[in-house]
Amino acid sequence: MNSSDKALVVLSGGQDSTTCLYWALQRFGADNVEAVTFDYGQRHRVELDSARTIAALAGVPHTVLPIDTFAAIGGNALTDASITPESGARADDDTALPNTFVPGRNLIFLNFAAAFGYTRGARHLVTGVAQTDYSGYPDCRENTLKALELALRLGLDARVELHTPLMYLSKADTVRLAQQVGAMEAMAFSHTCYNGEQPPCGHCAACELRAKGFAEAGVADPLVERFRQG
Amino acid sequence: MNSSDKALVVLSGGQDSTTCLYWALQRFGADNVEAVTFDYGQRHRVELDSARTIAALAGVPHTVLPIDTFAAIGGNALTDASITPESGARADDDTALPNTFVPGRNLIFLNFAAAFGYTRGARHLVTGVAQTDYSGYPDCRENTLKALELALRLGLDARVELHTPLMYLSKADTVRLAQQVGAMEAMAFSHTCYNGEQPPCGHCAACELRAKGFAEAGVADPLVERFRQG
Repeated sequence: MNSSDKALVVLSGGQDSTTCLYWALQRFGADNVEAVTFDYGQRHRVELDSARTIAALAGVPHTVLPIDTFAAIGGNALTDASITPESGARADDDTALPNTFVPGRNLIFLNFAAAFGYTRGARHLVTGVAQTDYSGYPDCRENTLKALELALRLGLDARVELHTPLMYLSKADTVRLAQQVGAMEAMAFSHTCYNGEQPPCGHCAACELRAKGFAEAGVADPLVERFRQG
Repeated sequence: MNSSDKALVVLSGGQDSTTCLYWALQRFGADNVEAVTFDYGQRHRVELDSARTIAALAGVPHTVLPIDTFAAIGGNALTDASITPESGARADDDTALPNTFVPGRNLIFLNFAAAFGYTRGARHLVTGVAQTDYSGYPDCRENTLKALELALRLGLDARVELHTPLMYLSKADTVRLAQQVGAMEAMAFSHTCYNGEQPPCGHCAACELRAKGFAEAGVADPLVERFRQG
């Protein structure tokens, strides 16, 4: 493979991006994958620790890039400690946005990933966004990402490719994919809980969605097992 | 006018964004315009002072938003003090990018402007980019911005409109527009020089391009006049 086959995975430390990282290792080869994590002032710093641990387990170069701009724009629950997050993802109402929504956050993550990838010779960008099982984050939908891909290609004058292997998978299918690509060991260190708890609280919307997916796939969640075994 | 007619101008403190700020005041009305400036670690801090002075002269609310990510990505002349900028804009070679190029910088500015505008109820974004008289910054071209506008509309689920009043104007026409919209008083405090000098050095590519535009329009540059009268 030459440098145009290098891939950069946006790794949040969650279940989906962990799956994507191992998907990318299969697709592009171990020597062609890097990961980037954004430190945007998220309340749950455990996400960054998860990302570091998972990148190390996967054996890929990992860069944490700061973004201080969201906190300066302010007024949202994920960066503003004075605001309490609502239940988050609400699959039953795809018109309402949870107050954890940072406007355009995913667009900005992918823009920075493209800029960073440009400097590293990585034109393939991999992100774990999905339309299925999610609330109405409009910047995670395929039509948004197709428009962004075009803007990035034109704006960077490079053949950027956005890969979204989970876009139309159910949570159960994502669990099955994680098994197929060998992500389960790392999955034990992924972070999902909206309340930032370890072991996960088990009752927030994110924990419930994750548990539902593992249950439907008939697979024990390695994260839950890790804490059960102490 | 209602809130959907509010506009946010991306104000760098340079000649073009100053012209756009006054264009926006005419187009949207004095009560409907705000300005945002990005502090991304640019070497010439005088740009931020220019932006503050110009916003104050125009009487518009002004916010400086930090972006620490470019410096972390590194390796470019505008944020890395160890790299010397090349001559910058090179109108004679539209394939070469000057090493002042931050990949996708303008895309990211407009993404953040859209996110900030979203929180302020401003769906009109005004930027001073132009295809004419410039080197090959691909993220300043109209096709890039049209794709980005679509990505922003879909990703924010809002009718974002990108306005680029200078897109196809020559530098001389931009000077004429600045006169028409009453931007000349503020223009005396705008900043252009690639070398960050005040008074401007007069011999860098940016100073030469600016001087050429004023000369072709047959107008004295208020910035030059201000220092001449000293």
